[in-house]
Amino acid sequence: MAKNKKQKVKRPKALPPRGFRDYFGTDVTERNDMLGKITDVYQRYGFDPLETPAVETVEALGSFLPDVDRPNAGIFAWQDEDDAWMALRYDLTAPLARVYAQFRNDLPTPYRRFAVGPVWRNEKAGPGRYRQFYQCDADTVGSASMAADAEICAMLSDTLEAVGIPRGDYVIRLNNRKVLSGVLEAVVEIVVHEQMQTAGPDSPPSIYDEMSEWEANVLRTIDKFDKVGESGVRELLTDGRLDASGAFIDGVGLSDAAAEPVIEFLTSKGDDTAATLENLTKAVGTSEVGFKGIRELEEIFNLLVAQGYGTDRIVIDPSVVRGLGYYTGPVYEAELTFDILDEKGRKRQFGSVAGGGRYDDLVKRFTGQEVPATGVSIGVDRLLAALREKGRMNSRANGPVIVTVMDRDRMGNYQTMVSELRNAGIRAEVYLGNPKNFGNQLKYADARNSPVAVIEGGNEFESGVVQIKDLALGAALAANITTNEEWKAQPAQMEIARGDLVSEVRKMIARADG
Amino acid sequence: MAKNKKQKVKRPKALPPRGFRDYFGTDVTERNDMLGKITDVYQRYGFDPLETPAVETVEALGSFLPDVDRPNAGIFAWQDEDDAWMALRYDLTAPLARVYAQFRNDLPTPYRRFAVGPVWRNEKAGPGRYRQFYQCDADTVGSASMAADAEICAMLSDTLEAVGIPRGDYVIRLNNRKVLSGVLEAVVEIVVHEQMQTAGPDSPPSIYDEMSEWEANVLRTIDKFDKVGESGVRELLTDGRLDASGAFIDGVGLSDAAAEPVIEFLTSKGDDTAATLENLTKAVGTSEVGFKGIRELEEIFNLLVAQGYGTDRIVIDPSVVRGLGYYTGPVYEAELTFDILDEKGRKRQFGSVAGGGRYDDLVKRFTGQEVPATGVSIGVDRLLAALREKGRMNSRANGPVIVTVMDRDRMGNYQTMVSELRNAGIRAEVYLGNPKNFGNQLKYADARNSPVAVIEGGNEFESGVVQIKDLALGAALAANITTNEEWKAQPAQMEIARGDLVSEVRKMIARADG
Repeated sequence: MAKNKKQKVKRPKALPPRGFRDYFGTDVTERNDMLGKITDVYQRYGFDPLETPAVETVEALGSFLPDVDRPNAGIFAWQDEDDAWMALRYDLTAPLARVYAQFRNDLPTPYRRFAVGPVWRNEKAGPGRYRQFYQCDADTVGSASMAADAEICAMLSDTLEAVGIPRGDYVIRLNNRKVLSGVLEAVVEIVVHEQMQTAGPDSPPSIYDEMSEWEANVLRTIDKFDKVGESGVRELLTDGRLDASGAFIDGVGLSDAAAEPVIEFLTSKGDDTAATLENLTKAVGTSEVGFKGIRELEEIFNLLVAQGYGTDRIVIDPSVVRGLGYYTGPVYEAELTFDILDEKGRKRQFGSVAGGGRYDDLVKRFTGQEVPATGVSIGVDRLLAALREKGRMNSRANGPVIVTVMDRDRMGNYQTMVSELRNAGIRAEVYLGNPKNFGNQLKYADARNSPVAVIEGGNEFESGVVQIKDLALGAALAANITTNEEWKAQPAQMEIARGDLVSEVRKMIARADG
Repeated sequence: MAKNKKQKVKRPKALPPRGFRDYFGTDVTERNDMLGKITDVYQRYGFDPLETPAVETVEALGSFLPDVDRPNAGIFAWQDEDDAWMALRYDLTAPLARVYAQFRNDLPTPYRRFAVGPVWRNEKAGPGRYRQFYQCDADTVGSASMAADAEICAMLSDTLEAVGIPRGDYVIRLNNRKVLSGVLEAVVEIVVHEQMQTAGPDSPPSIYDEMSEWEANVLRTIDKFDKVGESGVRELLTDGRLDASGAFIDGVGLSDAAAEPVIEFLTSKGDDTAATLENLTKAVGTSEVGFKGIRELEEIFNLLVAQGYGTDRIVIDPSVVRGLGYYTGPVYEAELTFDILDEKGRKRQFGSVAGGGRYDDLVKRFTGQEVPATGVSIGVDRLLAALREKGRMNSRANGPVIVTVMDRDRMGNYQTMVSELRNAGIRAEVYLGNPKNFGNQLKYADARNSPVAVIEGGNEFESGVVQIKDLALGAALAANITTNEEWKAQPAQMEIARGDLVSEVRKMIARADG
């Protein structure tokens, strides 16, 4: 095999595409463990797994489609050999819609399904912002019952506790888009009254002409409640507001009186559920849809109480406004309530890790029919970050025991040792690199986060003993040891009978885990 | 919300792209359970998970790249906004090569990794042939030691038993590309001798001029050994062969004597390992590389025996020729040895479910350096099919207990029941469809493969009892019942105290499982 040394070869760059990344070792196992616990709860609630392909037709994906030749704004899309456009899915809801429309005559009604997997976004990548990431969704399709929404709230609560967020460290907040619709109707009623007083009863009130624009403006303002608070929203709904940067933001132009129902809605959370519901009832005025929304919240709340889910876990909280524009009924959000330090060292609540609600347009694009559906999506990376933040992930990497190689000819002996360890359920491996330099073997063990190294030289072999080295303890000691004498005295290595290998290694690992 | 009834809307088709499919319920859980068992074994052997993105640069993927504008023959590829080509990975080895080249200074040496996930092929789809499917790979990169190959064989054996293939129903066959290289050298020696006898000692033997073509022809012939057997290979190596369709296939043109080492190699499996190795030694003549290959096989075999893996699990079998052209050293293949009936009702062995071997060119494209590597890939769909074939999958779908809704106002009671069941670890749900028609509720339970339905009407509620219905037994009885009287007498439904719900349901499920 003679080597070709023609012109210099251009080598490919060893990099993933921009915005994509690799996950190694515990990053993979920790995520999988968490997802396993989540889907165990979903299964127990009767939800069935669904796995759709990564690739869908652009036609079926739909919503990201601008009317251009190359429909890949926001998505990764390409043309098939027969010129049909295909794309990577950008979420798990669009494929659910396609599947439900395709198999609606075969699927049980209602259809409870969960889905876990990567989705892809063709967006600018940035620090911590990737173009492939996990989603984890559960949806109930085909049931209009509030019991379906209550069930998902209960399931979300069980899920958070199953992954390791204890009760008291999270709360699930519940709101309802219908209540907001009622509030908007109450506002319109006031505006109409005001306009008729000004222009006289014969001029039609102008608010009806610009209804959709006006509604969008109010929704956009409500979305800012988290940031600007009650007074900020009041300014934005009326005459406008000078923001922190000194810029003036135009207001929606409502009177103080017309803005009042919105403020009442956003601040309606009372000391208990009855008080909250009473405040909401004031906010919606005479609106039918508003009343319906309040009754829905009450029904969900009562169903949850019947199952033992009290306000320590799930509360009605009308200040939850994220996504209210998208959903058509109940909306829910899971927030972690413990404090973390932000990048500037300030305390703040960890915040939202899951959200969802009721929507009715799931399969309408395909079939023309509205099908009621409600569902939740867990922010996989955020929840993982929360578990790591709280140290609730078993963060000690579960490295393997390393059986070192002192004598290349006795590889069979070393393999027998790892066999014994593995058969006892202990993660273990023989060092497979060049064994000449023993220091390299220990460096390798260190790189693998190994808890224990096993050493058997010729003398040990003949005496029927092995050395085992507590690498976790050794590392801890090394950090505190200053003199050579101390180093020699450190108890991190011990000689044991060959026959006690499994039991002694197990003890040492238990010590390292404790 | 007035409905728009403008022109007729063109609705998207509710179909996945050609060659892609959805996986529902147990199809997902069974695959995940199997993969979980496999990766548990890999972890125990010290292998670390690696998850690379679905998308790579076409430059990094490399080998499918024809020199054309649109490099998507065989792969799904598209251009990024800055015209760089990206593609879906077509296997898990190309991403490993990229990762190892990228992170080689940070990864432990050797680097043992496993990877599980979908890969994509832009090929013609057909029945049972999909363009997205799972792969499950384990590779050791950076070790030239035969202990690495032995380890993977042992791991493969443990893996098959862990997923439910008992010892005796599988065998791992071991071969070595170096032995084949030795055999080819032995053939060349004979041919050279023959040519020199014919043309005289001063004419250079012509076989050297057409070496690579000649070698390719012999390799191609060897690949047909499974199909055409010893006599067929002999014909194809010499003068040619009339195949079953009546077509004449040209031979390679060797003399009977020159073909002999190849035949000896392919038929060298003896009664025991010593006999096989002796036969191989004859086949390679005086070839150095051939001897080295035989020593490697012997070393792997001895390492395996030291760990207790005998010939009931792992055998040296030179008739394993699949992939011999690709690998550079040991080659291994896991075959299931039990019989199944093929589509024509004929008995045949289930055959190969995993294969692998040693290769040295993993990162050479990126770094120019050869890095020794050895690895195995499990055919996920084939192994799943095997487990289903043998009924070793828990094929009873684990459907949820259905709590039916007799009285819509007591939804809270029903939710309490499912809570109790779930807290006891039993999969359970309330019927969330329209409860009016009770028959629909039982139909739904049937569609969900539910083992038990719980029924609590107003009378039952007042008396503190519930009805539980054994749906598995009911279905079994229904199949055998011919008269109405028998139907009434069937014991599939019973009344129990409300307080015994969990314990009685558990008993009923246990009966259904048994």
